[in-house]
Amino acid sequence: MGDNICNGSQNKKALLSDPQLFEDQFEDLVTELSEQDLTDPALSDALHRLREVLVYNSPGGKRNRGLSVIGTLRELIPPTQLTQDTVQRALTVGWCIELLQAFFLVADDIMDASVTRRGQPCWYKKDGIGLDAINDSFLLEGSIYRLLRRHCRDQPYYVHLLELFTETTFQTELGQALDLMTAPPGQIDLNRFTMERYKAIVKYKTAFYSFYLPVAAAMHMAGINSEEEHNNAKHILLEMGEFFQIQDDYLDCYGDPAVTGKIGTDIQDNKCSWLVVKALEVMSPKQRAELEACYGRHDDASVEKVKALYNTLEMSMLYHNYEDESYQRLQKLIACHAQNLPHAVFLNFAKKIYKRNK
Amino acid sequence: MGDNICNGSQNKKALLSDPQLFEDQFEDLVTELSEQDLTDPALSDALHRLREVLVYNSPGGKRNRGLSVIGTLRELIPPTQLTQDTVQRALTVGWCIELLQAFFLVADDIMDASVTRRGQPCWYKKDGIGLDAINDSFLLEGSIYRLLRRHCRDQPYYVHLLELFTETTFQTELGQALDLMTAPPGQIDLNRFTMERYKAIVKYKTAFYSFYLPVAAAMHMAGINSEEEHNNAKHILLEMGEFFQIQDDYLDCYGDPAVTGKIGTDIQDNKCSWLVVKALEVMSPKQRAELEACYGRHDDASVEKVKALYNTLEMSMLYHNYEDESYQRLQKLIACHAQNLPHAVFLNFAKKIYKRNK
Repeated sequence: MGDNICNGSQNKKALLSDPQLFEDQFEDLVTELSEQDLTDPALSDALHRLREVLVYNSPGGKRNRGLSVIGTLRELIPPTQLTQDTVQRALTVGWCIELLQAFFLVADDIMDASVTRRGQPCWYKKDGIGLDAINDSFLLEGSIYRLLRRHCRDQPYYVHLLELFTETTFQTELGQALDLMTAPPGQIDLNRFTMERYKAIVKYKTAFYSFYLPVAAAMHMAGINSEEEHNNAKHILLEMGEFFQIQDDYLDCYGDPAVTGKIGTDIQDNKCSWLVVKALEVMSPKQRAELEACYGRHDDASVEKVKALYNTLEMSMLYHNYEDESYQRLQKLIACHAQNLPHAVFLNFAKKIYKRNK
Repeated sequence: MGDNICNGSQNKKALLSDPQLFEDQFEDLVTELSEQDLTDPALSDALHRLREVLVYNSPGGKRNRGLSVIGTLRELIPPTQLTQDTVQRALTVGWCIELLQAFFLVADDIMDASVTRRGQPCWYKKDGIGLDAINDSFLLEGSIYRLLRRHCRDQPYYVHLLELFTETTFQTELGQALDLMTAPPGQIDLNRFTMERYKAIVKYKTAFYSFYLPVAAAMHMAGINSEEEHNNAKHILLEMGEFFQIQDDYLDCYGDPAVTGKIGTDIQDNKCSWLVVKALEVMSPKQRAELEACYGRHDDASVEKVKALYNTLEMSMLYHNYEDESYQRLQKLIACHAQNLPHAVFLNFAKKIYKRNK
């Protein structure tokens, strides 16, 4: 403890970047979860399944959520006070957030009848998996608490992390419930697509776990537990989370597939996207009737009509106006609410998400 | 605190039996979870859904699991030291176990393609529910941690309960994973039905949450945290859990439907039941070939052939031998392992389950 460079292996680690350390830790955690913790031989088939589920459903990506824990902690604790052990624990807590996301995605894909996820078949779509994937999603969630227990049990912030993860999980589930009742697959009813509902879905389904959770976890690890400081950070981070999702919705339609790496299908999928919600706010009754005839349909002609309508309504301009306003609002929030927290905690996030094009 | 009868309402409560108190508390907890805790108006539709999910999936039953918490606590704490607040908390922790069970059952019914549960359609089979029931099952699980937080946050055993519930949940999920890979719906392969596998499924899928969990929760509430005492109790309770499931399997085939209230379908459903596992241990290769031709089929002739084979093998006698042995083993375990724990904790359970006929 306290000594950054005490042997060759740790010395080597000290030379690696956080993203490299983070990727390297995954294999250790998988081995720990599937081989070292529960040693009852009767469980070996179930633990082998757990390994498969973990490996398939944690494919490479930007890992922004997971990496934000160590990223934030580095802003909260001076480098000289940040031990290798603390870094390792922050990386592990980061993996717990990635596991939480994997839990949600495996289950959401079943509920949404999705086919692919990040360029590979959804887990439940694989041969021989099917609805057993429901239990697999539970195993991903359950792994979070095994990791926290093994790595953080003796830390003063252990109970705070347990509460933070269970509370955030519940908020995300409420958001998913709202989303499912607002855009049920196969039922098109634009009356449900209000801006108020849109913002509630984004806040609960995405912003809490993607933005507040990693920063709040790092704050607890740094000993910052006061409700006021957490509420301040939450205020700023939920604003960022809202912007992030609105941008995602914008890029689904207006992004360059060569850059984003995906071809958007929100219009075809009857998604409660910011674009359709905002368009509904500004369009005429005649345009609304047109939209109702085309939204949520898979034929190219319908999709093109929706896009033409978006262009007539200058959705791209409306989005950029929103982006500028949100950015200004965020700067003010950081100035007013960051208080004792280093502004870099929030500015690092803001840099990554504003003006991104993928 | 400490005063059992301090006002009219509590006085009235003091006159009610634990099962009555337990049933009465449910409506309060539902209201708390769906109205009082999260007050963001944007969540009201999601919380309304939560109320429906809670009410539909907690229908009446024996409530043995939930009631065992207060039942055990009454053996561990003298009546004069058991305050009304503590009783209320023990009932709430009991409801957390019922919620855990509801979470598993809602999800298991989807994975098993079940049609009815306790005389009503399975939740996912209801009009307009379908696979959204997956998220509903998550809401049931999430409610556990909201109740524990609201009611037990200031108690010294709070973190123990959080760990106990997350750990037990994971063990149950591993048991479900084993069960799904041992008897996949539609695939009949009797080679997978070994006694070793059977016992592992029962232990992990049923015994931990049904038998150890309620007693362990009460032990923590009474301040008993030592690993040794918990391991002793676990030893005894897992033995009881195994017996309970074996008896359940026996009653599925040999119970009187007029008494059990259900018509068994384990043979038709290709279940890894104790009867088929034990029968496989004692039968001849010729009998095994017969069984392979009939097990897991829905026509009456096949079912009758399996039952005739069971009768030839005297499964009823083998079961009663097992029952007697298990009872003797249990008495010894209680004598050796109960140590500081009142034997009544275990004997109350044993009385309820041995020689039951429903």
